[in-house]
Amino acid sequence: MKTVGVIGAGRADEELLQIAEEVGRLLAKEGVTVITGGLGGVMEAVSRGAFLEGGITVGILPTLKKEDANPYVKIPIPTGIGEMRNALIVRASDVLIAIGGEYGTLSEIALALKTGKNVIGIKTWDIRGVIEAKSAEEAVKKALNIKSKS
Amino acid sequence: MKTVGVIGAGRADEELLQIAEEVGRLLAKEGVTVITGGLGGVMEAVSRGAFLEGGITVGILPTLKKEDANPYVKIPIPTGIGEMRNALIVRASDVLIAIGGEYGTLSEIALALKTGKNVIGIKTWDIRGVIEAKSAEEAVKKALNIKSKS
Amino acid sequence: MKTVGVIGAGRADEELLQIAEEVGRLLAKEGVTVITGGLGGVMEAVSRGAFLEGGITVGILPTLKKEDANPYVKIPIPTGIGEMRNALIVRASDVLIAIGGEYGTLSEIALALKTGKNVIGIKTWDIRGVIEAKSAEEAVKKALNIKSKS
Amino acid sequence: MKTVGVIGAGRADEELLQIAEEVGRLLAKEGVTVITGGLGGVMEAVSRGAFLEGGITVGILPTLKKEDANPYVKIPIPTGIGEMRNALIVRASDVLIAIGGEYGTLSEIALALKTGKNVIGIKTWDIRGVIEAKSAEEAVKKALNIKSKS
Repeated sequence: MKTVGVIGAGRADEELLQIAEEVGRLLAKEGVTVITGGLGGVMEAVSRGAFLEGGITVGILPTLKKEDANPYVKIPIPTGIGEMRNALIVRASDVLIAIGGEYGTLSEIALALKTGKNVIGIKTWDIRGVIEAKSAEEAVKKALNIKSKS
Repeated sequence: MKTVGVIGAGRADEELLQIAEEVGRLLAKEGVTVITGGLGGVMEAVSRGAFLEGGITVGILPTLKKEDANPYVKIPIPTGIGEMRNALIVRASDVLIAIGGEYGTLSEIALALKTGKNVIGIKTWDIRGVIEAKSAEEAVKKALNIKSKS
Repeated sequence: MKTVGVIGAGRADEELLQIAEEVGRLLAKEGVTVITGGLGGVMEAVSRGAFLEGGITVGILPTLKKEDANPYVKIPIPTGIGEMRNALIVRASDVLIAIGGEYGTLSEIALALKTGKNVIGIKTWDIRGVIEAKSAEEAVKKALNIKSKS
Repeated sequence: MKTVGVIGAGRADEELLQIAEEVGRLLAKEGVTVITGGLGGVMEAVSRGAFLEGGITVGILPTLKKEDANPYVKIPIPTGIGEMRNALIVRASDVLIAIGGEYGTLSEIALALKTGKNVIGIKTWDIRGVIEAKSAEEAVKKALNIKSKS
């Protein structure tokens, strides 16, 4: 089964949050496991969308406490390694969707591209190699149809 | 929800494998998420028991390839950090059950005890601090009833 | 004592390599410990510059083999965690100098900025927050004079 | 050049501390780089012995702050990954000497043996595979003469 990592900032405006929730909903509908960083903002919105659709949501947390996961994370993985867990999110995902995002998201985009994984981006960092999508539907479609680079 | 890590060697004799499968089955029956290292032997037997009972099985893999997980792992987490992932198994678990085991299992027992997590042991390393159990039933009972140390 | 991480690609053109070697030389002259990823290209050039000046050079390697370090690394730290070691380079450094660079370098820039560390950039990724320098001298001067953000 | 990891508890009695300091001194005299966890107790004593002999001492710290290193660590490597850094100490060392020690040391012994590295033990955990030594001299001699298993 495909796993899709959805990355984005812990704080985001309403528009991005709605896109994120829709991305989560659509991924769950396709039976895809959704991987996030497990915290708030985009991570929570996408988990919420997937959770409410009955999907599996994994949250790879920077802290040691699974209670730090947002309520829509079914499988919290507390790591205690801080931002270093960003690399684990990338490694656990077949393909990534970046929604908005700050420096943390940028590190994930860079690690994904470095290791040959595709990144679909919605209103995110303008980095060569990122495949642009205009909407949640387009992003999910591209994420699911893309052939794995590896 | 409680998560229980079950640790043990990649190769084990038939008796230990049967105990492991029974541990997995009993944990799943209680609605517990089962965390393992995702590979063969005890890891596969416990995942099989939990999987066949309809439980959630997470495999935190040493490699980068989720295909390395045994077929009973529902949520493979490839890490690419080798034996260092043993620390992640411990961190993702509220309590641990050790079944038999070689040096890898010993490292997990030590890390768990070092960080204040309880370890129930069945025919495993004789290390002070490990709570002994004679059977799968006793181990699961103790794992579920124990008050978290943290 | 200050530690400066110097990041850049494993392959780079002659101009960048000369800048990197000069950065290494200048840092060693100031008694600074130089941290790199330990491999070739910019990492090797900066280590060479520092080494020939009698400085201390640390190479935090992605592999398990210290033999993978370039010959100018005095202290090889094999990690076996692949690109995830980029986070360790950032964490071991008080401030970073980025010289050119591909996606790996971008991940380090992002992790540094995310965790509040200053990044001086020479002909590198154009990311907001990076402090531009035109030459090795300017980069080293800025790296040493900057007040730590933390 | 050989690197030797010396592992032991953050608190130890006077006898073990004297042995540790002597181990550090003897290793430095042989030009060996000494790797420790960088904190107090055995880690500090061995670093002190090596430092005062003019040796190179590396401290791979569990925290993010190099200030947490004891004063005899020349090269502090703050990791921010807690006890998980034990695996990095093992990986950065060609061979290990364990002096006394609690659960943290046990995890390092287990990881070393699991990955085929030799462990010399002085008054430490009684684990099969550990090569016993009665004194600092004997431990250092065995550590330096042993053929790498890998």
